[in-house]
Amino acid sequence: MPEIMTRAAAEALVAKALTAAGAGPEMARLTAAALVDGELVGQAGHGLSRVAQYAAFLRNGRADGAAVPQLTAPRPGAALIDAGNGLAYPALALAEAEGAARARSQGVAFIGITNSHHSGAMGLPVARLARQGLVALAFTNSPAAMPVAGGRRPLLGTNPVAAGFPRAAPHPPLVVDLALSTVARGTINGYAQRGQAIPEGWAVDAEGRPTTDAKIALTGALVPLGGTKGAALALVVELLCVALTGAAFGFEADGFFTDAGNQPRLGQARLVIDPGALAGQAAYLARIEALITAMLEDDGVRIPGQRHAAQPDTIALSDAMAHTLRDLART
Amino acid sequence: MPEIMTRAAAEALVAKALTAAGAGPEMARLTAAALVDGELVGQAGHGLSRVAQYAAFLRNGRADGAAVPQLTAPRPGAALIDAGNGLAYPALALAEAEGAARARSQGVAFIGITNSHHSGAMGLPVARLARQGLVALAFTNSPAAMPVAGGRRPLLGTNPVAAGFPRAAPHPPLVVDLALSTVARGTINGYAQRGQAIPEGWAVDAEGRPTTDAKIALTGALVPLGGTKGAALALVVELLCVALTGAAFGFEADGFFTDAGNQPRLGQARLVIDPGALAGQAAYLARIEALITAMLEDDGVRIPGQRHAAQPDTIALSDAMAHTLRDLART
Repeated sequence: MPEIMTRAAAEALVAKALTAAGAGPEMARLTAAALVDGELVGQAGHGLSRVAQYAAFLRNGRADGAAVPQLTAPRPGAALIDAGNGLAYPALALAEAEGAARARSQGVAFIGITNSHHSGAMGLPVARLARQGLVALAFTNSPAAMPVAGGRRPLLGTNPVAAGFPRAAPHPPLVVDLALSTVARGTINGYAQRGQAIPEGWAVDAEGRPTTDAKIALTGALVPLGGTKGAALALVVELLCVALTGAAFGFEADGFFTDAGNQPRLGQARLVIDPGALAGQAAYLARIEALITAMLEDDGVRIPGQRHAAQPDTIALSDAMAHTLRDLART
Repeated sequence: MPEIMTRAAAEALVAKALTAAGAGPEMARLTAAALVDGELVGQAGHGLSRVAQYAAFLRNGRADGAAVPQLTAPRPGAALIDAGNGLAYPALALAEAEGAARARSQGVAFIGITNSHHSGAMGLPVARLARQGLVALAFTNSPAAMPVAGGRRPLLGTNPVAAGFPRAAPHPPLVVDLALSTVARGTINGYAQRGQAIPEGWAVDAEGRPTTDAKIALTGALVPLGGTKGAALALVVELLCVALTGAAFGFEADGFFTDAGNQPRLGQARLVIDPGALAGQAAYLARIEALITAMLEDDGVRIPGQRHAAQPDTIALSDAMAHTLRDLART
């Protein structure tokens, strides 16, 4: 029997679990809100399943629970936030607020984040910015999982990209959120656990040769979407998130699949644009609706990001998850 | 026997051909420079082969030779340029200059272009900005060639994306330049002319069904790279270039494969970032070199954009091309 909890109760329980592991109150609160939101929009991989992992990182030093993000902004449209090797969410919240304010005053804002960590469901921050009338793009690098074009060793993360576009009320924003690998590592893990072969084009072995063996794939690398073109896009994301911010590249960050490892020092970037600074809010809203109307003329087309429409007030926890969270909170 | 011409002589000849078709002197000069550059970096599809097509558009009214780009900038970091349905290059040149200046003062600049046209080899402007020490991204939409995810009719352009990243001298910038279709329409055209079947995954027929018949593919649509993920990325580019600028979507713009058609009113966007506004120029350069060093440890890896290293002073024209250009210039 799943346990039904209010959102507030779930956030408080997760925050307590993170505080017990060493997170400061603000880090615990913001991380809990992000993970509950991730669970509620159906992205379990960026939801409550992360609580135990984050708690382990706080305990073993891969994340600094006492970190407080520091912002420097030598120019009005750009800013760099040092997340101080804490969990990412305090820095991400600061980036979101700074991005919105600077986009409104300057027309566009680019916020980079360094010394950061796993950054969760990236559709959430761009959807929040879009609900404020702002166009937002979000980028992060991640521990190495894909080779560059022509290479064998994984150097680049799967480097997810998200974009949020406002629509007129009552429509939720249009939200795109995708990783630049053909499929997620978690998908291949599922095939390995079931002993199934994976389709061609998903992964390569440790020598860079295509494989359909899920277990071998897990020791190799993921294939970027569209092959060399996807590898080039992932390279662009890596450079935006890391070269501009001074963070660590995917190949310098230990993975999250085991508790042990280094402080990953990942990088993130947020681009926020105010439609009022270009053709104007009214022209923008008329144009996006014209495209969406054309899209919906074909049966079978869904406007991406509908999951960001619902804002449920309650969350269903499995017995196992409720037990894990209470256990962590009691420590 | 190809004819060897200096770059200056080739530009003058192309400018004369465009002037004869009705382009104003500045439009003729900037368009000629862009097409000769496109040819010289090996992108013949954005090189001299376009001269006759552009001349036809100038003559039949699809492009206004008298257009002068108009800039409005209600905020310091963003600007909107109305290309006035001329050939795109005067507006693109203005966007490049404005993007560089505003990125230097504001840290980041976003320049949108509306009522624009075919925008040529997009690696060129980002390479020029990167040679000035600026990180630059370029986007354009294009006449519809790909369906959205789940759709059948082509709504989105192939929507190329380019990115330029500075490196320390003497290295040329790292430049990525790719369309979001699996392959270019021109590639499929080649298969059709040779009567060859195309591989699966390149194209669909007019009903959205996969096809390996190149001729049927040309009446259908291109497949986005990576399928639905690539379609989502092309949708993001379409919204950045069109919804923000008030331009026309891919499905509203007639194609360039026949002379007849409407003024395409395409949209472009330029994002320019000054590394000095984030972790700083020195940290940026150290980080990009660290990644490139790691990339080159695998045999077979090439740093993208090497074609932008060479700046030849002469250009070889086929007899047929030289004849066409002189013919157009004499009109």
